[in-house]
Amino acid sequence: MVDKDKNAALALSGNWNYPTSIAFGIGKVQIVPEMCRANGFNNPLLVCDHGLVDLPFVKTLVEDFSSKSISLGIFSEVKTNPTGRNVEDGVAVYKQGQHDAVIALGGGSALDAAKAIALMIGQNRELWDFEDEGDNWRRVNESQLAPVIAIPTTSGTGSEVGRASVIVDESREKKVIIFHPSMMPFQVVCDPQLTVGLPSAITAATGVDAFVHSFEAYCAPGFHPMADGIALEAMRLIKENLVVAYQDGSDLVARSNMMVASTMGATAFQKGLGGVHALAHPLGAIYDKHHGLLNAILLPYVIQQNLGAIEAKLEVIAGYLQLDKVSATGFLEWIVSWRESLSIPANLGSIGISAQRADEIGEFAVNDPSASGNPVALSATQYADIFRRAVGC
Amino acid sequence: MVDKDKNAALALSGNWNYPTSIAFGIGKVQIVPEMCRANGFNNPLLVCDHGLVDLPFVKTLVEDFSSKSISLGIFSEVKTNPTGRNVEDGVAVYKQGQHDAVIALGGGSALDAAKAIALMIGQNRELWDFEDEGDNWRRVNESQLAPVIAIPTTSGTGSEVGRASVIVDESREKKVIIFHPSMMPFQVVCDPQLTVGLPSAITAATGVDAFVHSFEAYCAPGFHPMADGIALEAMRLIKENLVVAYQDGSDLVARSNMMVASTMGATAFQKGLGGVHALAHPLGAIYDKHHGLLNAILLPYVIQQNLGAIEAKLEVIAGYLQLDKVSATGFLEWIVSWRESLSIPANLGSIGISAQRADEIGEFAVNDPSASGNPVALSATQYADIFRRAVGC
Repeated sequence: MVDKDKNAALALSGNWNYPTSIAFGIGKVQIVPEMCRANGFNNPLLVCDHGLVDLPFVKTLVEDFSSKSISLGIFSEVKTNPTGRNVEDGVAVYKQGQHDAVIALGGGSALDAAKAIALMIGQNRELWDFEDEGDNWRRVNESQLAPVIAIPTTSGTGSEVGRASVIVDESREKKVIIFHPSMMPFQVVCDPQLTVGLPSAITAATGVDAFVHSFEAYCAPGFHPMADGIALEAMRLIKENLVVAYQDGSDLVARSNMMVASTMGATAFQKGLGGVHALAHPLGAIYDKHHGLLNAILLPYVIQQNLGAIEAKLEVIAGYLQLDKVSATGFLEWIVSWRESLSIPANLGSIGISAQRADEIGEFAVNDPSASGNPVALSATQYADIFRRAVGC
Repeated sequence: MVDKDKNAALALSGNWNYPTSIAFGIGKVQIVPEMCRANGFNNPLLVCDHGLVDLPFVKTLVEDFSSKSISLGIFSEVKTNPTGRNVEDGVAVYKQGQHDAVIALGGGSALDAAKAIALMIGQNRELWDFEDEGDNWRRVNESQLAPVIAIPTTSGTGSEVGRASVIVDESREKKVIIFHPSMMPFQVVCDPQLTVGLPSAITAATGVDAFVHSFEAYCAPGFHPMADGIALEAMRLIKENLVVAYQDGSDLVARSNMMVASTMGATAFQKGLGGVHALAHPLGAIYDKHHGLLNAILLPYVIQQNLGAIEAKLEVIAGYLQLDKVSATGFLEWIVSWRESLSIPANLGSIGISAQRADEIGEFAVNDPSASGNPVALSATQYADIFRRAVGC
């Protein structure tokens, strides 16, 4: 990257305060030890993806804590789709080490696990009692959550600005949404530099995930114009930057724009998600596939199903993204070709998923909390049919 | 309003959680007494505009408190441009009545005064020590702020979602920005019904104020894409709804859209404001004119000055607002004719402001905190010249 581009990327920084306090910019990860000291955390627990522990920037971070004489525990036993067991283990490590805060570092898996650990350190009930249904969240003893500093290392999930974690209950083969308003990290540190080493396939899948968050939020029924505005601008940023980041992972301008777009997608989707997520959740639980990849493959199949209900909205998106054809079909055509340019497989069959359990998956989807955000109510049969079409082959 | 329209308006409701907790929708003001009870407030102080106390909805609200056996004090000695003295008086009433929370009800004046009162009830320093310069806000004893529930009755200022108050220091003839992150009300209740009785001239002036917030935020330098998205969507809502609300104040769909746009403008302008506000602040302090009206008159003069620096942004706005001419000049032309359709005077001379103190006002403007958000740095002389052109005649 030439100096001019580096400077352009360095300008993409800021301190924002909604939906929570966000310190954004290249190199920001370096402020975390001092941030802990300023908040009186003397013994935080770093919860991160397994693959991260040996990366140079994590080693540097650990050394920075050490040089500031702040103890730091590490817990990295988090699966790609984190499980209730992962959370229990993390809670045990937190208690045993008498930690006083959680530093959540990683992609969606680590962030979700870390937020659930922070939730569970002082509760008397089991995790599944806080499943996002009705007002279960009121069961939480609010005064007992550990404070969380969240540091994303992918640009997709946006879990760093979310008030929920998705945790797999293995006994039920179900992705369970655990929700509490205070699960929103009190401080987020976004350092786009941390995403430079992401493999291109992960860049693509997580990036489309962020797009799907924005897209489903924008199309969800309900009145939330602030979410709509955030979602539109996020889609524009992703359209302008994802292919660039995918082709050249070291492009810090593209990486920065993708990272902020990811926080925006997750902020927007507090309005609601939709059918793509309703299907991706059970598929992730059953087949243990990457959530972003599932969303990316499913997206056009669900759009096709919803088309009649969202034509006007698709036209607005197409106009704002300055697509060649400003129409609903123009948008759908663009999605398909854009996905191709990111080498996302065209169907679920290509990643080893068969249609065998389609009816069951239709049932799971219709009961998934995300289904309520779909622009039109779909039946289990309709979800099963979308799934069959998405399996292809 | 026919039933169909009423139902359309009733659908414009929601519970949002950024930038703070917002309960939005027609009739929502009725939940306030119960909200106080749920939060353990047994003796809140209602701070409101002088003109509001006798309105039927305020009387109903007061009765609702009474019927729930919740004490309620009232303080309504707030000037159009609230002063340090207003704040002192409110603090004295709060202390004397041993109140436990502030309910801020009104336009920007009452909300700003109420937030400043809530700030000051437990501080040992004087108000001006918290002027928004450097890190003065760190001087605040954070544990001593009264909790605030904010209920806007105009759609313009957006003070209900802001972390600052603008208070006039009469001895300095200066509008002083008082800032602390915790001045953000912890709960906002937006009930568009409360704006139905607003006179059309106030509807127009406050509505353009909300537009200027969004516009200056969008054009401010700095990287804050979430603010940009919010600002764009707010401008679109205002363009579609302000003239309707101005022409028919009882149109609840237009009133609802204006009210949410107003919260969005103020959320967006955490990114920054610009030259319009830099001039409107001293003019408001010196001539005691309506802030929104000053902004509305000044807007095209400041755009003209900044044009070279913001052409690309104006083109984006023009496109998103679907103006006839998608260009910077098309946008400026639209602003002028839109302002006319709202019967906003074309110059400051029409509202009795002369150019006599132009040089002084230029100095005030260049030193106003909002000046730092202007797309290009302007000198005191340049501000004075813009002011002279805006005085016209």
